[in-house]
Amino acid sequence: MHSIEPQVRACRDAATAVAALDSAQRQTLLKAMSAALLANAGAILAANARDLAAAKDKGVGTAMLDRLALDPARLMAMAEAVAEVAALDDPLGQVTRDDVRPNGIRVQKVRIPLGVIAMIYEARPNVTAEAAALCLKAGNAVVLRGGSEALHSNAAIAQVLGGALRAQGVPEAAVTVLTDQRREAMLELLQLHELIDLAIPRGGEGLIRFVAEHARVPVIKHYKGVCHLYVDRAADLAQALALLVDGKCSRPAACNAVETLLVHAELADAFLPQAARVLAERGVQVRADPRAQALMPDSTAASEEDYAAEFLDLVLAVKVVDDLEHGIAHIQRYTSDHTEVIASADPQACMRFVQALRSAVVMVNTSSRFSDGGQLGLGSEIGISTTRLHAYGPMGLEALTIERFVVSGEGQVRG
Amino acid sequence: MHSIEPQVRACRDAATAVAALDSAQRQTLLKAMSAALLANAGAILAANARDLAAAKDKGVGTAMLDRLALDPARLMAMAEAVAEVAALDDPLGQVTRDDVRPNGIRVQKVRIPLGVIAMIYEARPNVTAEAAALCLKAGNAVVLRGGSEALHSNAAIAQVLGGALRAQGVPEAAVTVLTDQRREAMLELLQLHELIDLAIPRGGEGLIRFVAEHARVPVIKHYKGVCHLYVDRAADLAQALALLVDGKCSRPAACNAVETLLVHAELADAFLPQAARVLAERGVQVRADPRAQALMPDSTAASEEDYAAEFLDLVLAVKVVDDLEHGIAHIQRYTSDHTEVIASADPQACMRFVQALRSAVVMVNTSSRFSDGGQLGLGSEIGISTTRLHAYGPMGLEALTIERFVVSGEGQVRG
Repeated sequence: MHSIEPQVRACRDAATAVAALDSAQRQTLLKAMSAALLANAGAILAANARDLAAAKDKGVGTAMLDRLALDPARLMAMAEAVAEVAALDDPLGQVTRDDVRPNGIRVQKVRIPLGVIAMIYEARPNVTAEAAALCLKAGNAVVLRGGSEALHSNAAIAQVLGGALRAQGVPEAAVTVLTDQRREAMLELLQLHELIDLAIPRGGEGLIRFVAEHARVPVIKHYKGVCHLYVDRAADLAQALALLVDGKCSRPAACNAVETLLVHAELADAFLPQAARVLAERGVQVRADPRAQALMPDSTAASEEDYAAEFLDLVLAVKVVDDLEHGIAHIQRYTSDHTEVIASADPQACMRFVQALRSAVVMVNTSSRFSDGGQLGLGSEIGISTTRLHAYGPMGLEALTIERFVVSGEGQVRG
Repeated sequence: MHSIEPQVRACRDAATAVAALDSAQRQTLLKAMSAALLANAGAILAANARDLAAAKDKGVGTAMLDRLALDPARLMAMAEAVAEVAALDDPLGQVTRDDVRPNGIRVQKVRIPLGVIAMIYEARPNVTAEAAALCLKAGNAVVLRGGSEALHSNAAIAQVLGGALRAQGVPEAAVTVLTDQRREAMLELLQLHELIDLAIPRGGEGLIRFVAEHARVPVIKHYKGVCHLYVDRAADLAQALALLVDGKCSRPAACNAVETLLVHAELADAFLPQAARVLAERGVQVRADPRAQALMPDSTAASEEDYAAEFLDLVLAVKVVDDLEHGIAHIQRYTSDHTEVIASADPQACMRFVQALRSAVVMVNTSSRFSDGGQLGLGSEIGISTTRLHAYGPMGLEALTIERFVVSGEGQVRG
């Protein structure tokens, strides 16, 4: 079959047209896209019905079918998400440094677009519209490589977005959906480092490892969230229980759900029996070390793997630790660099916890479930980085830009 | 031969000890390193003499010998550079965002170290000390892989720095010089993505391409600087001439030297004959398009390659362009994303130039030779990125850190 390079090159050319839009034009564009998604709901839902039928024929599981399915309510949510991105503050042109040197030259750092973003993701068709909106808002073009299950849905969404682009005089290629699902096409995409500035894979660990393994383009990756809740000696018991229940049970399949509970030995007797009760009420299976097991009826023995696991389910690993330092050491060993929480009323302990850990999000007396771009005030999120480069943690619009230097003088020379 | 993985793993372990040092301790450490370089000058110069003798035996060229050679003055400059890094503002702990959400949680972004930096470079032994100082100042450990020519010099410098580390209770492995010069060792280094957070290659294009080609660790690269000076219709002639002479002649081998001069057609008659005169006086060879050639005696015809070339020498490509837009289009086609300069007294033209171009440094009426970390106020520079990711342009201490989220609440849950 053919090379995808011409499609990606067309996207790169379109990036110049996107970057040339001013703030008002980009806002108008995204509002038009939001309206077009609603106006063309019928076509998108019809395409989605084809994907769903094909997926059912292939015997795809219910969880996947649910992620794939669109209905009028989900389509409306998609359109609203695009409109919300339209309304966000413009990251472009922001001046992050402004300094006059002794020789009189003025040195500014100003945000500009990255260029071309490649999103590589699995079955959710809403990612197609939301990722396109975020990339365009930050002045970038985007290549979208979704899963084969959502092929028709993604193509239909892209066609609708393309109409809005054309109406603003921007080439449709600014939002390019790759429909070539061959492994060779993906491998080719990951080699196009002259055309793609950043690849963001979103999906299962297998997909992300494949991208990281084969990419010559820069990749920002998020493998998994093994989030820890450490309950300190000085924790408020009721608060710690609430953080545990919210962190583990409010959405267990989310990457910001608590997977491991660590409890200071001095508090274990008071805390763990209560924790066992509330967890049991919510159907949470507990895998514990011997000290915790003794205090938690119905718990089973935790294995080494349980402490490294992202369960994404109503399963919790529990361990009693001798003190704060042992808690920190456990987290340093098993961290996925995503989110760690301390429950403590002791400011010293909280400060030590924050300073000792280098995860993307470190929280004090706050539920891990707030570790999300929207909740942290980024407006919307294109992904979560667990790579300490460019962006770390939830990535909003700023992560789709770069700061460059603008220098002005009156003829200064260095001599 | 053996694997280098144990050495790099020791460096990674040492990174935790470096990150645990507070600001005053890191400053003390760097001052001690600076003093130790002076105190051990004899040993370093003796090691350097061995490298120089070996290089001469191998018939290495004079330019390379000069870059390799240390003498008491250069050693003093090296020690001073380390002391200057010690005195820079601490980038760690800087709060770059501080925001209270409607639910009362406080969201901060705070700078932390990247972890382990791998510097891959060629013959200058001063890079060993300066890069180590910058990495440590930003709380990182560093793996240094210099060229084989400087092997003894680099090992001697590392030994001296290691003594200062030990005295502060930090494992010497925090500054690890790799002496294994096999290609396999380099390839292994570039695969260690679990241990290395960032690789920075510095040197010729061949080295940088090799690193970019084989790395699975993140790489920030700087291929070359094809810097443009565009002289607008509204330029002040004397100022533009000064920017040209400084940009081309003050240090032609630097990556921020001007390589291509573009002149607005309406100014060509007035500007180019004068330019030809001052360039001839300084021995600059001019390669020009037909319109410029007619105005510049002694110029030869420019080829397509000349406009893409980083001459690093007293050679200049010249072209007359119809107007600002043609100048911008030429730069967009040939840019290396390094530095572009406009000479113009017309604010509109300057604004258009800055907005249309996405190079790392865009300058108005300022010599390209100021495109340097020290000159732009970064204190010191570990490299120049022409990759639009993480850092773009001259990289100072901030580029060796990452912002992460610190969130504090009073038990808030998401529900």
